[in-house]
Amino acid sequence: MGGQRKVLIVGGVAGGASCAARLRRLDEQARIIVFERGPHISYANCGLPYFVGEVITEEESLLLASPELFSRQFNIEVRVHHEVTRIDAAGREIAARDLHSGRSYSEPYTSLVLAPGASPVRPEIPGIDSPGVFSVRNVPDSRAIRGWISTRSPKRAVVVGASYLGLEMAENLARRGLSVTVVDLLAQVMPVLDPEMAEPVSRHLETHRVDLHLGDGMTAIERSGSGGLVLLTSAGARLPADMIVLSLGAKPEVQLARDAGIDIGRLGGIRVDDSMRTSTPGIWAVGDAVEVRNIVTGRPCLLPLAGPANRQGRVAADSICGRDTRFPGVAGTSVCGIFGLTVAATGASEKALIAAGIRQYQSVFLHPMQHASYYPGARRLHMKLVFSVPEGRILGAQAVGEEGADKRIDVIAMAVQRGATVFDLEEAELCYAPQYGTAKDPVNMAGMIAANVLRGDLLLARWQDLEGTAAVLVDVRDPHEFAAGHIDGAMNIPLGEFRQRLTSLPRHKEIWVHCAIGQRAYYAARILSQEGFTARLLPGGYETYWGYFP
Amino acid sequence: MGGQRKVLIVGGVAGGASCAARLRRLDEQARIIVFERGPHISYANCGLPYFVGEVITEEESLLLASPELFSRQFNIEVRVHHEVTRIDAAGREIAARDLHSGRSYSEPYTSLVLAPGASPVRPEIPGIDSPGVFSVRNVPDSRAIRGWISTRSPKRAVVVGASYLGLEMAENLARRGLSVTVVDLLAQVMPVLDPEMAEPVSRHLETHRVDLHLGDGMTAIERSGSGGLVLLTSAGARLPADMIVLSLGAKPEVQLARDAGIDIGRLGGIRVDDSMRTSTPGIWAVGDAVEVRNIVTGRPCLLPLAGPANRQGRVAADSICGRDTRFPGVAGTSVCGIFGLTVAATGASEKALIAAGIRQYQSVFLHPMQHASYYPGARRLHMKLVFSVPEGRILGAQAVGEEGADKRIDVIAMAVQRGATVFDLEEAELCYAPQYGTAKDPVNMAGMIAANVLRGDLLLARWQDLEGTAAVLVDVRDPHEFAAGHIDGAMNIPLGEFRQRLTSLPRHKEIWVHCAIGQRAYYAARILSQEGFTARLLPGGYETYWGYFP
Repeated sequence: MGGQRKVLIVGGVAGGASCAARLRRLDEQARIIVFERGPHISYANCGLPYFVGEVITEEESLLLASPELFSRQFNIEVRVHHEVTRIDAAGREIAARDLHSGRSYSEPYTSLVLAPGASPVRPEIPGIDSPGVFSVRNVPDSRAIRGWISTRSPKRAVVVGASYLGLEMAENLARRGLSVTVVDLLAQVMPVLDPEMAEPVSRHLETHRVDLHLGDGMTAIERSGSGGLVLLTSAGARLPADMIVLSLGAKPEVQLARDAGIDIGRLGGIRVDDSMRTSTPGIWAVGDAVEVRNIVTGRPCLLPLAGPANRQGRVAADSICGRDTRFPGVAGTSVCGIFGLTVAATGASEKALIAAGIRQYQSVFLHPMQHASYYPGARRLHMKLVFSVPEGRILGAQAVGEEGADKRIDVIAMAVQRGATVFDLEEAELCYAPQYGTAKDPVNMAGMIAANVLRGDLLLARWQDLEGTAAVLVDVRDPHEFAAGHIDGAMNIPLGEFRQRLTSLPRHKEIWVHCAIGQRAYYAARILSQEGFTARLLPGGYETYWGYFP
Repeated sequence: MGGQRKVLIVGGVAGGASCAARLRRLDEQARIIVFERGPHISYANCGLPYFVGEVITEEESLLLASPELFSRQFNIEVRVHHEVTRIDAAGREIAARDLHSGRSYSEPYTSLVLAPGASPVRPEIPGIDSPGVFSVRNVPDSRAIRGWISTRSPKRAVVVGASYLGLEMAENLARRGLSVTVVDLLAQVMPVLDPEMAEPVSRHLETHRVDLHLGDGMTAIERSGSGGLVLLTSAGARLPADMIVLSLGAKPEVQLARDAGIDIGRLGGIRVDDSMRTSTPGIWAVGDAVEVRNIVTGRPCLLPLAGPANRQGRVAADSICGRDTRFPGVAGTSVCGIFGLTVAATGASEKALIAAGIRQYQSVFLHPMQHASYYPGARRLHMKLVFSVPEGRILGAQAVGEEGADKRIDVIAMAVQRGATVFDLEEAELCYAPQYGTAKDPVNMAGMIAANVLRGDLLLARWQDLEGTAAVLVDVRDPHEFAAGHIDGAMNIPLGEFRQRLTSLPRHKEIWVHCAIGQRAYYAARILSQEGFTARLLPGGYETYWGYFP
């Protein structure tokens, strides 16, 4: 090639903008042009629900960088309202159209980066294009929702899709005074969680008066007589709404790439190697439009999140400039705040492992306080840790709680990334003062419980096997706790009386012990197994029971 | 040996209590006796300052477990107010005294665990035993301080020692309405930090009207005419006080061990191997009394913290029961809250590296927001990352900020523990939503800056070399920022004009660039080096300048 590098970047949000800025830092001489179909680059799409909720009041604060700033500080040319319509890979040029003037033109390149993002899924059902039905992808979308709220004063909203964006929208619509119903085809909210971990999230939503309509799909949208909308479902429900927000996920924008003959993966994203190169020489792709490798399951996945997109943009820039930087794949770390509750996860859920055909794992549950219980403000965290058997490699973790969930998942995410085991969590040396954690941090506790299982000190029973088990169920909580609610058929032997009452237990049956959260039952299980009984612990205790049997 | 295991544990707080409980889980048949000289076991010594400050109101909430609970649930015998006075290692028995009855007796053992803790340092200066001079080790100590406050209504307190406990006491005494002066022999607060990182902590203390009297030592305590106290210093200051709190660190309690011929380390702690065995067969030691290996410097250290003590207790129990569990050493992770500011650190500071003779390192600074700046409540974090050159192994990190400092240090602590490099931080996949972090998390940013240095994309200047440098100093902030305050002798070339004004810069001198926090200067440095200049970046920008030149 020789001479000046000329890089065209299609899409100027997270991945595209990061790539452009990194390119400039690596090559002061390169000509860099960013094409953006919309009016903005580098906007804060993760902030859109909060703009709707007026937590973020000024639209300007969503605009993280302007074309003018890119030009002045980075000497990068940004063409907003310009759409790239065709790639001539052999000729190394693209065709673009100025959406304002309608003028079409071609632009040659030495390297091309595709960062087109993903578009909201809009199922082709009757009424989907009715006024009052919204998607949430960009600033104009959220401006339209705000406009609808301020001019129409809607009372009832239906949000379709109970994943991150849907629940964030539910919260923010509730914040604006609307009563909100969330509909999802799945029987749970937050599909990143396993169902029993999603249960506290559902309860939390309900205490904030969000109606959940789960396990049922949208089939049509009709106008009602009163000028509102009605959402119809497969099960025959008719949900009235003054507005409907769709958050059914996003579909990689691959038409441009497909038309150019670039390989598309099985999941519908652009296929890239670990330098973010597509199948076509001279063309890279990054962000929500690409498929990446999940480092836990080893499988390709779509992960439309800003963090990985930014890092992919850097990798592509490095690769274009001849550097051998690799994108290591993703663990799928994510977080969502819902009415003051934090839901965070990293790695694979049990569901995801089963879907990937991975069966050699175990799960433990814990419900520790986020900081010392004697310090005011202690709140319970709900955590699940999934690990490989017998190696103990951390496969995934989920945490739900008012405070500290993101911190624990971040620590475990770093551990997952480094291929760590539950024994590393057991030994983690983390910040401890009473307002920040516990001397045995929840991360340590998760590791210790898992390590107990792997060392053979603790046999686990599975909640899924509870119904119809022949085992003797023993609840070792105190009588007043037992009286307040217990598992059908469980007998109550408080831990303090356990050694004296061992003789009342049969030796020819398995004994499944539990307590409130698992700590006392662990002692009971140790006593039993050392006394020659076959004991298993129902992990996470009565608190987890509620997740499985709500 | 054969037969029933009989384990005696000297000391029943963090390490001792953990060891006892773990022993019971491993060996249902063992006889386990805990000797505690004081009135309580398992008390929350990290909560003591907050009990003084009445954040924690009830004394009972500091008592995490009672002898009765240990007996009932764990079948562990606890003897409070019993002091172990002598060890007969050859005969495998100890001598103990019941402090209430005065009765002395001996007790044989098969294994002995020493968990005596550490006692507050009290220098032998005139007046040290005056009424109104307090140490803070246990519940009775803090009860005495509360009593003094409620009966004497003191107005002025002097706290001697500006480490964790001293600053926590300063905050809690201020909370009780006292005006507080903190005295320390060092010229900085929080010795776990490097001095420039301690500077924002000092400023924060001063905004909360804590007087700092640094770089000066206490020489005597006198009574004043009015019935109060006066603290005299080496520099001749006379600091009046109605009460004085000593927080000069803790000294391992090793007399019992020393008398028994057990090896004591160079730092004055009991020497143990990685199974927590002392030099004497049949005797283990854990907690604040022992020396442990720092995994970063490889050197022995004293680290009187509850987390490591608990884990050491578990390791000793495992070892006693014949399991090959090892204590991996410590990174020194710690945290402290001071008037709403969090100070957290892991690994080694620059000071500690120099003291350990380690010179092949570099440091970077950053001052990112703890979460997306467009989301309400964004607050600045101050971070320092120290890493080995050229490998990039993470040697240490320090963080100071109102929110999110503990989270970032916990993630980096896990990285340090796993022997990770700054390249792993660069690639860390952490929880991101606008209220939790940034798409490029502060941990990523720290890794990216360090990686830029290691890849040769960025040369750093050292702030220590600023005075008397022959380099040209260029400040690339905007003129209004420059006008509000700048480094003496710096010229101002805003980044937006940088490319046009390159010709005004000399090619025969080094050019040291900086901005507010480092981001814009990084672009300027990249432009300069690609244009053939020799450019260095002053890391952390004007914000870090203030740390070095307060």
